[in-house]
Amino acid sequence: MSQHKQIRIALFLTAPVLALLVAFATISADEGQWPLSMVHKIDLAKAGIEIPASEIFNDKKPSLVDAICRVGGATGSFVSPDGLILTNHHVAFNAVSKASTPTHDYLHDGFVAETRADEIVAQGYEARITVGYRDVSQDVLSVVTATMNPTERAAAMTAKRRALLRAAKAADPHLDAEVAEMFQGKNYVLFQYQLIKDVRLVVVPPRSVGEYGGENDNWIWPRHTGDFAFLRAYVGPDGKPAPFSKDNVPFAPRRFLKINAKGVSANDAVFLLGYPGRTFRHQTAAFVAFDEEVKMPFVADLLEERIRIMERVSKNDRALRLKLGPRIKGMANTMKNYRGKLLGLSRLQLVAKKDAEEKQLAAWIAKNKERQKNYGHVLAKVSQIYQAMRPDTYLNYIRIRLNSTSCWQIAAAAIAAAPHLSKPDEQRPTRFRAAEISRILDAGKTRDEASFPEMLKSELLGGIRLALEQQQIIHLAPLTRWCQAMAKKHGVENPQELAAKIYASTHMTDRKFRESLFDPKNKNTKDDVLDLVGILVEPTKKARGRTPKFRNELNALMPLFVDAKRQWQAADFCPDANFTLRMTFGRIRSYEPRDGIIYHPLTTLSGMVAKATGREPYDAPKKLLDLWRNKDFGNYVDKDLNDVPVGILYDCDTTGGNSGSPVMNGKGELIGLNFDRAYEATINDYQWSEDYSRS
Amino acid sequence: MSQHKQIRIALFLTAPVLALLVAFATISADEGQWPLSMVHKIDLAKAGIEIPASEIFNDKKPSLVDAICRVGGATGSFVSPDGLILTNHHVAFNAVSKASTPTHDYLHDGFVAETRADEIVAQGYEARITVGYRDVSQDVLSVVTATMNPTERAAAMTAKRRALLRAAKAADPHLDAEVAEMFQGKNYVLFQYQLIKDVRLVVVPPRSVGEYGGENDNWIWPRHTGDFAFLRAYVGPDGKPAPFSKDNVPFAPRRFLKINAKGVSANDAVFLLGYPGRTFRHQTAAFVAFDEEVKMPFVADLLEERIRIMERVSKNDRALRLKLGPRIKGMANTMKNYRGKLLGLSRLQLVAKKDAEEKQLAAWIAKNKERQKNYGHVLAKVSQIYQAMRPDTYLNYIRIRLNSTSCWQIAAAAIAAAPHLSKPDEQRPTRFRAAEISRILDAGKTRDEASFPEMLKSELLGGIRLALEQQQIIHLAPLTRWCQAMAKKHGVENPQELAAKIYASTHMTDRKFRESLFDPKNKNTKDDVLDLVGILVEPTKKARGRTPKFRNELNALMPLFVDAKRQWQAADFCPDANFTLRMTFGRIRSYEPRDGIIYHPLTTLSGMVAKATGREPYDAPKKLLDLWRNKDFGNYVDKDLNDVPVGILYDCDTTGGNSGSPVMNGKGELIGLNFDRAYEATINDYQWSEDYSRS
Repeated sequence: MSQHKQIRIALFLTAPVLALLVAFATISADEGQWPLSMVHKIDLAKAGIEIPASEIFNDKKPSLVDAICRVGGATGSFVSPDGLILTNHHVAFNAVSKASTPTHDYLHDGFVAETRADEIVAQGYEARITVGYRDVSQDVLSVVTATMNPTERAAAMTAKRRALLRAAKAADPHLDAEVAEMFQGKNYVLFQYQLIKDVRLVVVPPRSVGEYGGENDNWIWPRHTGDFAFLRAYVGPDGKPAPFSKDNVPFAPRRFLKINAKGVSANDAVFLLGYPGRTFRHQTAAFVAFDEEVKMPFVADLLEERIRIMERVSKNDRALRLKLGPRIKGMANTMKNYRGKLLGLSRLQLVAKKDAEEKQLAAWIAKNKERQKNYGHVLAKVSQIYQAMRPDTYLNYIRIRLNSTSCWQIAAAAIAAAPHLSKPDEQRPTRFRAAEISRILDAGKTRDEASFPEMLKSELLGGIRLALEQQQIIHLAPLTRWCQAMAKKHGVENPQELAAKIYASTHMTDRKFRESLFDPKNKNTKDDVLDLVGILVEPTKKARGRTPKFRNELNALMPLFVDAKRQWQAADFCPDANFTLRMTFGRIRSYEPRDGIIYHPLTTLSGMVAKATGREPYDAPKKLLDLWRNKDFGNYVDKDLNDVPVGILYDCDTTGGNSGSPVMNGKGELIGLNFDRAYEATINDYQWSEDYSRS
Repeated sequence: MSQHKQIRIALFLTAPVLALLVAFATISADEGQWPLSMVHKIDLAKAGIEIPASEIFNDKKPSLVDAICRVGGATGSFVSPDGLILTNHHVAFNAVSKASTPTHDYLHDGFVAETRADEIVAQGYEARITVGYRDVSQDVLSVVTATMNPTERAAAMTAKRRALLRAAKAADPHLDAEVAEMFQGKNYVLFQYQLIKDVRLVVVPPRSVGEYGGENDNWIWPRHTGDFAFLRAYVGPDGKPAPFSKDNVPFAPRRFLKINAKGVSANDAVFLLGYPGRTFRHQTAAFVAFDEEVKMPFVADLLEERIRIMERVSKNDRALRLKLGPRIKGMANTMKNYRGKLLGLSRLQLVAKKDAEEKQLAAWIAKNKERQKNYGHVLAKVSQIYQAMRPDTYLNYIRIRLNSTSCWQIAAAAIAAAPHLSKPDEQRPTRFRAAEISRILDAGKTRDEASFPEMLKSELLGGIRLALEQQQIIHLAPLTRWCQAMAKKHGVENPQELAAKIYASTHMTDRKFRESLFDPKNKNTKDDVLDLVGILVEPTKKARGRTPKFRNELNALMPLFVDAKRQWQAADFCPDANFTLRMTFGRIRSYEPRDGIIYHPLTTLSGMVAKATGREPYDAPKKLLDLWRNKDFGNYVDKDLNDVPVGILYDCDTTGGNSGSPVMNGKGELIGLNFDRAYEATINDYQWSEDYSRS
C-alpha cells in the first residue's frame, strides 16, 4: 500500500550544534526535556532504559520517534499498523464536543466506532510527525549586523526565519515545517513534519471515566481519571496528506508502540516522548520575580474573583450554569496552576537562588576584561527592563479591569470630546459628533448589560483598588496627587476601603451622568473615576507602545546571558520547551507534598470506587462498579496490588503539551498515558524539582 | 516529708474476674483498652515492650500506674518527684481561660511560673490516682431476683452500687471511689483513688503553639500542634488531700516518668496508660445501625447548619465572632468527629459485619436447647427495642428543632389553653389566665430575639422537613394525614420544597397571630404549623416517658448477649472504655487514609514552619521561626530526620479521655503526649481498625 512509502529527509547536524554537544560533557540525568539532537548523550543504562538511543531516535531506520505525533495541541502515539492514535480524552475533547448533538451526546456517553465506517471526523484536528531537523542558527544570525539596534535586529531575524520556512515548504510541498527558537535570540532549528490532514474519532470513554474527578482532582494526586481516547490517522490513497475523503486509507506509521499491560512497580524506569509547550528554565531571576510578584498574583486573584461571582450568579440558574461552566472550568484550571506555581516558587525560593547564582556569574564575568566587555552589562540591563515593565504592566492591568465595564471607554471618549463639544455638531471631528456619541453610549450600555451587575462592580472596584495599591510603582505625578486627594476626601488610607468609598461616590455607572458628559451646556462633570481614567489613558497607551521594544531588547540580551552562563558552568543546557519533540526520563516514584504526607505512586480501581458518590464528578459508570464488585478484572489485575492499577506517578520532566505522551518502560513499551502534573509540579515551568516534579 | 506517706489499699482479685481470665486464653495483641486486671495477660515481649507487667502495674511496690492521674476529664502523668504533671494544653484549657484577664491573656500569650509562688490555681481542677480496685459484680447482682422486671432490676442494682460506694468512702474518708460498670448490667468494679484537691498551672504554651492548626488541623494528620501543659499537684502539709492553701506542699508521687528526648522511629513499640471515656465495641448491630442511620446524621447535619449560620451572621461582626467562636469550635469538633465516624462505619461496613456475626451467633445458640432457652430471645429483642426507639427519637428531634424557636412552646400553650378561653379569666386554671398568657408570649419574643432571624428560620424549616421526611417511620395516623394534606394543598411532594412552602405560609412567626390564638373572640386560628405541633405534643411526651424503660430492658438483655458471645467465641473481651484506667499498646506506624496517600508517622519542625502563614491558626511564634531559621535545635534534633520531631502517629487503641496520656517507649520512658486521633480513627469508638486506627 502506498502509505508505506514514507517521506524521510536526511538529518543535518551542523557545526554549531555539534560544537555545543562536544563542548559540554556533563548532563544531569534527572532534569531535562531533551531535544532529539541530545538523546544520544543521555546515560540510558543509568536511567534504567534497556534499549539503545538508536532505538529511540534514528535517521536511518524506523525508531520510537516515528510512533509519536503532535495532535490537538498536544501529543499522541501510534499503537497499531493502521494509524490508530492513543491520546488523552482532554486532547480529543474539542473533536468530541463538535461531534456531539443533543441526541448523540458523545461527551457525556462516550463513543465507540464498531467499524471503520462508524469513525467520526475529528473536526479541525491534524497530526504531524517529526521527520527531520536541521540547525539553522547561522542562517538566522547571518542577517544581524553590528550596527543594528535591537528592533532592527529582531525584524531582520524574523524575516530570515520566514524566508527559511518558505524555502523549506517550497522544497517539499508534502511536508510541513517550522523554524523553532531553541535559545532566545541565539539558536534556531528547522523541523520538518509529515502532515496528516484527516483524523477521526475511534473510541472515547464517557465523561464519567475520561474526566472522573473533574475540576476537584485536576492538578491533584491521587488520580483515578481514565483520560484516554483513540483517534485514527488517514491519508490519501497515494499515501500523501489529504483532507477528509471517504477514499482515504488508514495511515501506516513507520513504527507503532507495543502496549505492555502487565503493570509497573515503584522505582521502575520510564520515559516519555512528546511535544512540551513552554518552559522558562533559562530565564533570569528578574524574569521569575516579575512573574511571581506581578503577573501571577494579578491573574490568579482576578480569576478567583471572577469564578466566585460566576458561581454565585449561576447558583440557582441551571441554564446559566451550563453556559458559564466551560468558562469557569478553564479559569479554574489556570488559577489552580498559578496558585501551585506560586506555592512552588515560594517553597523553592527560586528567585533568591537565581539571584545568588547570578551574583556569582557576575563576579566570574568581572574577573576577565574581555568577558566583562562582552557580558558585563547583561544582567543589570535585563533587570532594568523587567523593572521598567512593572509600571507599564500595572497600567495595563488597571485598564483591563476598568475596561471590563464600559466606564473606561466612555470616560476616555468624554475626555477626548470635551474640547470639541462647544462647537456646532457639523464642525466637530466625526468621532465627536452627536450620532457617534450616541452610538458610543449605546454600545456601553449594551456591553454592560451583557455582564452581571456584581461583575461590573467587582471589576470597577478592582481597577480603582489596583491604582491605589500600585501608585508608588506606577510613579505618575498626577496619579499620586489623585490618590492623595482621594485619601484626604474620604479620610481613609487603606486601598480596599478607599476604593469602596470612591466606587460608592462615582457617577460613572449612571447613564444620565454619562450622557451629561457630552452635553456642552452641562458644567457639572466632576467625577473621581472620570479623573482617574483621564490621568491614565495616555500613559497606558504609551506603555503598550513600549512592549515590543522591551521584547526586542531582551531578545538581544538573552543570547549573551546564556552564553556567559554556559562558559561559566562549563555545562550543557537543554533548551527550554518550545512545542518541538522532546524526550524525558525518570522513575515511578512517590513524593512528599507536605510534611507527614507521602503520595504513593500507584492508584487502583478500588480507589476509584472509593471516590464514587454517584454524582458528578465522581459518577463512575455502573458497569465499572459492577465489575469491581464481582472482582471481574480480566487480565488487568496486578499481582502486587491485588487490584487493577489506574494511575501512576513518575518524576519525568513534563509540561503542558506533554498531554497524551506515551509513558514507556525501559524496553520502550507503552505502559501508560501522560495526562497531568501533580499540584506541586506546576513549578516545572520554572524549574524541575526532585522533591516535587511528578506527572 | 509527710507527702511521702502514700495511702495504698490492698488489691482484691475476686473469683469472677479470675475465672474470666483463666477461661479465655487468646488475647488479641492489636486491639484493646486493657484494664489493670488484664495487663499481665498481654504478651509484652511480642508487643516490643521490654519491661515486665509488674513494672507497669504492681500492688506491692511503685509502678508506672502510680505516675498516672486523671485530671481535667482526661489524663496526666507525673514527671517530677515534686508533683509536676504533664498533660495537654487542651486539658488545661479551662483553667488557663479562668486564670486569664484582659491584661494577662495567658490563653493567647502562654504562661510560665518562674517560681512555685508564681504558679496559679487551676480553678475547678482535681487530680486522682488509681490506688486499688475490687470486683463487686457479685455484690451488685446479689440484689437481683428472678421475679423482677427490668425496671425493678435496674433500680435495685443502682441502689446497691450507691450503697457500695458509700461504704467504701466511709471506710477510708481520704480516698475517693467509684463503682464502674465494666460490662453493661453484668460486671462492676469498685475503684479507689488518691485525690488531689489543689492543682496549679506551671507552664502553658501560647495558643499559637498549643493550638497550632486550630480547627483546620483538628482530627487531622499531619499535625504540628504543641498540645502540652505542665500542672503541679499539691497536698496538705500532712500529705492528705487538701483544697488550695498557701501552706500546701507539692505532692510526691510514688513514681514519676522518666522523659526520653532522643526521639523514636517508625515501627518502634509504644504504649499508653490513661482514662479512655466511652466505647461501644460490645454493642449489637442494631445499636450501631441506630447511631449510623438515626443519631449521627441528624446531629452532624444540625451542627453543620448551625455552624454555617453562625459563621455567616458573625462574618462582619468582630464582637459577635469572638462570642460565637468557642461555640462554633465545640460544634465543629463534634461534627467532624461524627462525619469521620460515619465515613469509617461505611468503609468498614460495620453494621453488615456485626449482622453477619450475629446471624452466626444465633445459629450457634439455636443448636442447643439450654442455650436457646437462655439466649434465644436476646438478639431479636434488642433489635426490636432499637426499632421501637426510632419513631420516638425522630419525634424528639422534631421537637428539638421546632423548640429552638418559641413556636413549639407558644403553639402547645395555645392548644392547651383553647378549651378554657371562653371562660372568664378568674375561672380558668392559673396557667391559662391572661397574665400567664402574656408572660408566655413575652418569653417567646425574648427568646426569639436572643437568636438570629436566619437561625429561627432554619430551625423551624428543619423541624417541618424532618416531620415530612420521617412520617413513615413515626407512623402516626394524624401526622400522615397532615403530610398528605400539605402535599395536596401545595402541590409538592419533595419534603425540602414542601417544607419551604409550609414555612412561607405559616403565621406562627407573627406576633399578632400568636396573640390572637389566645383571644376567645378570634375564630381565625387555622395554621398548618400550629396543627403540626398539636399533632406531635402528646406523642412526643409519651415517647420521652418510654426512654428509661428501653434503657432498663437493654440493661437486662446485654449481659446475656455478652455471655452468649463469649461462650461462642471462647475468647476474652476487653470491657468497653468507661473512664477507668486502661493500658493500650502498639507501634509507631504510617497508614493509608485514601488510595494513593500514605501518612508518614513523624512530622517535623520544618513542617510546622512550612504551615506558618503569620495568621491564626498558623501564627507560629517568631522566636520559634527564628530558631528554625538559624537551625538552633539544641539537643532536640533527630539524626534520621535531620530535623526536630514534632508529631508521632501510632496505632494504639485510644478514645476521648486518653488526652494527655503519656506515650511510652518499650522501656516505659515517656517519649510523647497523646492528644488526638486521626480523622479515620474516630471509628475507634465502635471498632479498632488496623487500617485506620491511629492516634
